[in-house]
Amino acid sequence: MVITIGREFGSGGRELGRLLAETLGIEYYDKEIIAEIAKNTELSEQYVKQVVEKNPHELFPITVAHTFSYIDTQEIQQKQMIFMEQEKVIKKMAETSDCVIVGRCADYILQDFKPFRIFVYADMDSKVERCLARSENPDELPRKKLIKQIKSIDKNRARYYNYYTGKTWGDMLNYDICINTTNVNISDLVPHIAKMVKG
Amino acid sequence: MVITIGREFGSGGRELGRLLAETLGIEYYDKEIIAEIAKNTELSEQYVKQVVEKNPHELFPITVAHTFSYIDTQEIQQKQMIFMEQEKVIKKMAETSDCVIVGRCADYILQDFKPFRIFVYADMDSKVERCLARSENPDELPRKKLIKQIKSIDKNRARYYNYYTGKTWGDMLNYDICINTTNVNISDLVPHIAKMVKG
Repeated sequence: MVITIGREFGSGGRELGRLLAETLGIEYYDKEIIAEIAKNTELSEQYVKQVVEKNPHELFPITVAHTFSYIDTQEIQQKQMIFMEQEKVIKKMAETSDCVIVGRCADYILQDFKPFRIFVYADMDSKVERCLARSENPDELPRKKLIKQIKSIDKNRARYYNYYTGKTWGDMLNYDICINTTNVNISDLVPHIAKMVKG
Repeated sequence: MVITIGREFGSGGRELGRLLAETLGIEYYDKEIIAEIAKNTELSEQYVKQVVEKNPHELFPITVAHTFSYIDTQEIQQKQMIFMEQEKVIKKMAETSDCVIVGRCADYILQDFKPFRIFVYADMDSKVERCLARSENPDELPRKKLIKQIKSIDKNRARYYNYYTGKTWGDMLNYDICINTTNVNISDLVPHIAKMVKG
């Protein structure tokens, strides 16, 4: 049993994933993926995180007009290697145990495992509230700035997903179920989704 | 408890609605809406059906360049009256009993009832298969023609919904949950959705 979760920033997708794994008694993989890549590549977690969360256009340049120096090329090869390692790590995790994986295009990477694919979304007000609720200094986050941040993060997720999978992030057809968490208590929802996944 | 179902043609939304109402032991309204409008307006069911399923642009003309004859105007007024009657009928049904209502922009018309709003969709292959399975003469339906029909019906549904509600048909944010019925046995799904709705 493999469950993948795509989610808008602030929609509570990570919370839903964690609770779902808990309810089903299966593994939950999130930051563990970065740690595992770092271990396998002998690079720092911080560096790996920075690379896998970067705009993939920068990593797989398709333009020929640009000339690369030797150092550029080496750096790009290392980054591509991290990406390929990520794919390996995710596949190995899914092979090893039933699990929930959040983000990382896992729905695409694990398509041969026939995962149950969830997309979590919410309206902007609700996403802002969720971000403020989990912030340590909510007073220092002006609403307008937060909205801009949420949009920018999701834009990056979409770009990453679309580039990497050739499909469209958030397009219903890529998921088995799409869940609106606006005004919803996620822990109330989880038992029902767990049963749905078990079939 | 009011549940509204928007659905792509061929996705099995109507079946899902019927089974959901059965499982929850509540009313299921579909063709009953047309019958009730016909009764209240003393018009034939066939005529009412034809009007409410028509492109609403034709009913609420916004152009001033077009000149209406007296007969045109009378006809338009009668059609508008049917539309208003539909709204009344749907609201009355929701007031009278817990129910599932399929289509008819019921999610919008019943927004004050805080309905649980479902959208049902599937990939094209799956929709074609469902259409063929319920057809009496599947051999007489060339696949290409069927796909064209499915697209045309959904285009009309979208136009109707968008015009009437000012929102976008099939936009996730208009629904609490969106369900992909591709390769899914709808009757397996229904008990879980029923529990989710009950909360």
